[in-house]
Amino acid sequence: MTEKKLQFGIIGFGFMGQTHAKMITEDLDYADVVAVCDINKMQLEHADASYKTYLTADELLKEEAIDTVIIAVPNHLHLEMVEKTARAGKDIICEKPAGMNAQEVEKMLEVTKEAGVRFTFHHQRRWDTDYNVAKKVYESGELGNIYTIKSSLYGFNGNMHDWHVYPEFGGGMLYDWGVHLIDQILNMVPVKLKQIYAHVENVINENVDDYFNLQFYFENGVNAQIELGTYFLSDKESWFEHNWFLAGNKGTAYSDGFFPQGKIVTTSELLTNVPGKITMTHAGPTRSFGPAPEGRIITKELPSVDVNHGMFFENYYQNFLGQEELVIKPEQILRLMRVVDAIRLSAKTHKSVDFE
Amino acid sequence: MTEKKLQFGIIGFGFMGQTHAKMITEDLDYADVVAVCDINKMQLEHADASYKTYLTADELLKEEAIDTVIIAVPNHLHLEMVEKTARAGKDIICEKPAGMNAQEVEKMLEVTKEAGVRFTFHHQRRWDTDYNVAKKVYESGELGNIYTIKSSLYGFNGNMHDWHVYPEFGGGMLYDWGVHLIDQILNMVPVKLKQIYAHVENVINENVDDYFNLQFYFENGVNAQIELGTYFLSDKESWFEHNWFLAGNKGTAYSDGFFPQGKIVTTSELLTNVPGKITMTHAGPTRSFGPAPEGRIITKELPSVDVNHGMFFENYYQNFLGQEELVIKPEQILRLMRVVDAIRLSAKTHKSVDFE
Repeated sequence: MTEKKLQFGIIGFGFMGQTHAKMITEDLDYADVVAVCDINKMQLEHADASYKTYLTADELLKEEAIDTVIIAVPNHLHLEMVEKTARAGKDIICEKPAGMNAQEVEKMLEVTKEAGVRFTFHHQRRWDTDYNVAKKVYESGELGNIYTIKSSLYGFNGNMHDWHVYPEFGGGMLYDWGVHLIDQILNMVPVKLKQIYAHVENVINENVDDYFNLQFYFENGVNAQIELGTYFLSDKESWFEHNWFLAGNKGTAYSDGFFPQGKIVTTSELLTNVPGKITMTHAGPTRSFGPAPEGRIITKELPSVDVNHGMFFENYYQNFLGQEELVIKPEQILRLMRVVDAIRLSAKTHKSVDFE
Repeated sequence: MTEKKLQFGIIGFGFMGQTHAKMITEDLDYADVVAVCDINKMQLEHADASYKTYLTADELLKEEAIDTVIIAVPNHLHLEMVEKTARAGKDIICEKPAGMNAQEVEKMLEVTKEAGVRFTFHHQRRWDTDYNVAKKVYESGELGNIYTIKSSLYGFNGNMHDWHVYPEFGGGMLYDWGVHLIDQILNMVPVKLKQIYAHVENVINENVDDYFNLQFYFENGVNAQIELGTYFLSDKESWFEHNWFLAGNKGTAYSDGFFPQGKIVTTSELLTNVPGKITMTHAGPTRSFGPAPEGRIITKELPSVDVNHGMFFENYYQNFLGQEELVIKPEQILRLMRVVDAIRLSAKTHKSVDFE
């Protein structure tokens, strides 16, 4: 028995639409691309000869053979395309960011529920290797009580690409990379997010954000710190990569790079409270800092994980076959967009925002 | 003509009192130690034979020869000793933190003004080499508009020393190192501090803070980030040192260590807004991050500075001679203690606090 294959249509054939088409055609033996569309005729020249091509979503959505539509248009058009596609009775994978704000995503949930179509978002960075290593360390309990997690991503370009420079298209780094980094943290720390404090800047780009520093205080006492800068320079190794740092009362862990180099770090002795012995020694002016004595610092390898971005589509296909739940749930992404809205409010007022 | 020498008395002959006495006696040709006192007789055994020794401040303060008293008792006793000393008509150098809170420092300002005595605090880290390098970079304008400054200090011990483990003595790292790191930032960015957001933890120590992450939003758009952890581990070079990072729209600078290693970092080209060229290339999934191409990153040496902690006493002596203003002004330190009070409020409520 041959299992049913996924039949994809793609709305928006720019960078991400083309990336999806190529991957589906070349790598997924359980899926085909039936048709693609773009309002810009030149983009359609990049289409494989086997794809049908259209200039409008309306035409594409009339294709009976398509069961799932990937929406890869600029961000301000996501809601409109989700509504159209749901009304056409097709299942939907929508690119991130889900929408321009939480209100749009609420509407998407309504319309897709009403239409009874499958609905998810392309949050493939849930399967990033570095993220899964950090998550495994977090969940292992090895670091004791974790009080802070840092997720940092720095670049040297300073610029945004293509329509990402236009605020009205949903440009800026908070929508581009921000939603991935936030989604990872929300999924790693599965408790209430109490407070959000954000510093967001347009550093090189005139109209859209290209730096942010987010502070998330969770109910379990973890303060997560996400910092992204597209013009945040160093000549140090692994600087222009996604870096993690987790700190607990039994040790810390760092992970540098998308395919991480890092260590779990503990000490040979853990000094606890030194009671009030009033006689002091002249141990120099910095008794708490300065170089660690030989042998005090102990390192251990990071755990290994086996994940890749293809697992997003794998999971989608298994859900299509009735075998698995969707990993990326629309309700999670609605919460994520509420976080983004709160970040914008905090950045504008320079005050923390009560969240949950 | 021989200029008048400073004649010191020291109240509190623990670690810091002994450090001051040794330095004055051995290094300052313009100052002598007349007498020291401590309620713990054993501490007085460390006193030089040339010092008079007392068990109470009241006895020491009767010494006519003393013109300046250094107060180096545990933090909760600073106010009482400042009051006593001012009433005795002696000039005062008080150890940091100034007091337990801003209210105490207000009282100190009142009583010292009333008594007409010279009054300052031993904030010698205003003359730290690494701090002055960072400040010089900040003031040079080389980095363009600076939007964030990070000041980080990490350790491997996890414990606090002696009376620093007792909250009622003014223990904890916010009082110990925190006031130095905050004082440096307030002095580097001389504009209104609008917002404070703080995460403060007792990680290893049961009763006092040994980790903090402070976010200061200043009126000129700078967000300063101060992070200190006494058990925040890595096996990387220069980790257990005071590290700085400054980011602006023309470049960044990092400085690692108390005697800093670092660079000013810029790029060979600064890409500005890329207009809406809709045709995209398959440049891979990470167009904004990933390794910088050969030659893109350009480095320059950090500026050099010539400072040392002795300059605190030098300035005090010049003020005594009527030649210079005091660098460490009590009003600045009152503001600093107001910041510390706001940090404690923010850490307790997990909300940002409006400051100025």
